[in-house]
Amino acid sequence: MRMYDIIHKKRDGIELTDAEIRFFVEGYTSGKIPDYQASALLMAIYFKGMTENETVTLTDAMAHSGDTVDLSCFGYMSVDKHSTGGVGDKTSIIIAPIVAALGGKVTKMSGRGLGHTGGTVDKLESIPGFKTTLCGAEFINQVKNIGVAVIGQSGNLTPADKMLYALRDVTATVESIPLITSSIMSKKIAAGSHNILLDVKVGSGAFMKTAGDAEKLATEMVKIGKSCGRNVAAVITDMNTPLGTNIGNALEIKEAVSVLKGDTKNDLFEVCVCLAAEMVSLVFGTEIDSAKDKVLDCIESGKALKKFREWIAAQGGNTDFIENPDGFGKADFSLEVISYKEGYISQMNAEEIGNAAVVLGAGRAAKTDKIDYSAGIVLNKKTGDKVCKGDVICTLYTNREETLKTARDRLLSSLKIDESSAPRTPLIYKTIR
Amino acid sequence: MRMYDIIHKKRDGIELTDAEIRFFVEGYTSGKIPDYQASALLMAIYFKGMTENETVTLTDAMAHSGDTVDLSCFGYMSVDKHSTGGVGDKTSIIIAPIVAALGGKVTKMSGRGLGHTGGTVDKLESIPGFKTTLCGAEFINQVKNIGVAVIGQSGNLTPADKMLYALRDVTATVESIPLITSSIMSKKIAAGSHNILLDVKVGSGAFMKTAGDAEKLATEMVKIGKSCGRNVAAVITDMNTPLGTNIGNALEIKEAVSVLKGDTKNDLFEVCVCLAAEMVSLVFGTEIDSAKDKVLDCIESGKALKKFREWIAAQGGNTDFIENPDGFGKADFSLEVISYKEGYISQMNAEEIGNAAVVLGAGRAAKTDKIDYSAGIVLNKKTGDKVCKGDVICTLYTNREETLKTARDRLLSSLKIDESSAPRTPLIYKTIR
Repeated sequence: MRMYDIIHKKRDGIELTDAEIRFFVEGYTSGKIPDYQASALLMAIYFKGMTENETVTLTDAMAHSGDTVDLSCFGYMSVDKHSTGGVGDKTSIIIAPIVAALGGKVTKMSGRGLGHTGGTVDKLESIPGFKTTLCGAEFINQVKNIGVAVIGQSGNLTPADKMLYALRDVTATVESIPLITSSIMSKKIAAGSHNILLDVKVGSGAFMKTAGDAEKLATEMVKIGKSCGRNVAAVITDMNTPLGTNIGNALEIKEAVSVLKGDTKNDLFEVCVCLAAEMVSLVFGTEIDSAKDKVLDCIESGKALKKFREWIAAQGGNTDFIENPDGFGKADFSLEVISYKEGYISQMNAEEIGNAAVVLGAGRAAKTDKIDYSAGIVLNKKTGDKVCKGDVICTLYTNREETLKTARDRLLSSLKIDESSAPRTPLIYKTIR
Repeated sequence: MRMYDIIHKKRDGIELTDAEIRFFVEGYTSGKIPDYQASALLMAIYFKGMTENETVTLTDAMAHSGDTVDLSCFGYMSVDKHSTGGVGDKTSIIIAPIVAALGGKVTKMSGRGLGHTGGTVDKLESIPGFKTTLCGAEFINQVKNIGVAVIGQSGNLTPADKMLYALRDVTATVESIPLITSSIMSKKIAAGSHNILLDVKVGSGAFMKTAGDAEKLATEMVKIGKSCGRNVAAVITDMNTPLGTNIGNALEIKEAVSVLKGDTKNDLFEVCVCLAAEMVSLVFGTEIDSAKDKVLDCIESGKALKKFREWIAAQGGNTDFIENPDGFGKADFSLEVISYKEGYISQMNAEEIGNAAVVLGAGRAAKTDKIDYSAGIVLNKKTGDKVCKGDVICTLYTNREETLKTARDRLLSSLKIDESSAPRTPLIYKTIR
């Protein structure tokens, strides 16, 4: 078998065989196939796509290119959740304890933030003492004992995906549905959960800019996940506007606590209820309305918050912030962003707001950047809200005073204030099961 | 400027600017742009094509990526010829002295053979003493003195093309009209001739398999060459059947001599008259019918043969074979290939016959293979001919006896003998000026 023939075949739109796809993945991962042939194939895939069979094989080959996590001890109860990434997206931190409190086995490996999108691991690390690395046995035992563990990616999981993603990133071959699908799903398959809920974000702050593209990706991911023997569903949710009010690591933990306490009933709350109910439905086969009732009751009864405290403590975190959130991760400097005119906020570009948070220190422009956990933005107004001249639209927080003005300008330029109110985009577009 | 953005732009079908194309060619040649980004761009070009402006800039940037030959001393009289490669194609060796005898300044750099196609340099090197390397001054002086010099590529001509072609060759991005055009034309532009005649072969033994593809390529090359300020024409000629009767280096030299002597008036003769007339027409602006008359007269009068002898001697070749071709480059072993049935030869796959010649030692399967100059094939019958059972279709020659049977089987499998005669494909499809 020759890599040249595989490129040639895909270029001409002919379906690759299982053996050819595995030859490529194994050869590339082992260094036998050079980057320049891999990138030519990726570009040919960008143009010619992949059939369902091809994508399943690619996903499976990448999933098994390195270590895999064995969660068979949890039978059909293990459940994972993946978000395609957004701004202010702290849903995992809220949902994980809810689903665990309702009996699911939440086994989640999360990523770090890069660019305008945040990462769950960074957010959790803003809690003093919280450990995001557990060895395999610790991870399994914690899930056995309390039903939830969230850690950073550890071990040599999906090296093929790491290598191919790095190559796609520099060769303009990221935006391909089968390549995105196999990248995400291979990681989820390798991470071992039987049930997988996908939160596909759509809008200005998301990777998928249109509902049509998001639906294509979500449909493909569900199909491929099922073909790989997993129980998968996807929810397409809005990311035109940041989710909730708080952006930045410690600030997001605070908002999560507020939702878990039942004190906050905003868009974030709504999305969390929807996602948690889908996860419960995946694990137990519960009807979705009944699953929603269970989730709402779990919050109202305080069970969710109790599980949250248990979880944070199990991973070594100091839980004082749950009772005293005000003192938690306070930044030295802040600046109120004031509305320059009267009207309605018709747009709040989530990507630009995410970038403003990065300027303040809440995120990473480059992979090696250090994060300022207390930096971030708290929104007083969101898309659709009326503002008067002089109203506080949001407050910026940072320990690096010099960043405040740049961040303010960036934030103001991300807003559009119109004379009349415009309807908000829907919060939840569609569920694909 | 970033290579990533250039790939992205081409991928999305947006025309690249001159600066972007030059950034790519210079960056790749200097090693600043890695292979994997270059191959991704090449595959995007394969799918999205290039505009005329883009192809002209790419051609010009590659032509000037290394040394260029200065032929300005010949004004508008310098003339070069390029064939896209075929089997039994010894036209350059016949045409060069004809055009020189008629006053053109034939300045030609030729290639070596690879795979089923032969190379002019190899053929000339089968003449004892013939030197295919001349220094710049020797080359110019010889053309000044006798009007013709043919050498192998020397100096650091078009390094960008060499690097990009090697990359295309292993990434299935060879078959792209703008990339083929810029590759061929950049070499011709760098080689300096003002007048360029392109012989675009079409058929089973050619790179272009259909007349439509050949015409597209020929049209594009003429257009791009003219946009680069050169006087260019192209002739599309048949390569379904080997050209002439002899295949193999010394054997082809013998056939060339026979044509120059006026003794052979076959398909090879016809194509040579057509190509030589086009070159005369390019250089002197002569009407094509009048140019043909001049070419025919040049052969009949013996002027062509005289110029041939002068040329071979000028480059150090022993000219004895011109008078005594029988003793020239005789192989130790031969085998007659006999027809197994009666009928008409309806097909003679030129590529397969070329490969049979490679088996005998006449060509190279790999770049480093050594050539047996006396090896090859002499055809007694060609497409359209009637054969009886027991007739000699051709004779195989080699110094490696063990190759004879493999070559014979290969040759027989390249033939189709039918009960009724079929019309031959035209010899000359079209001229594009």
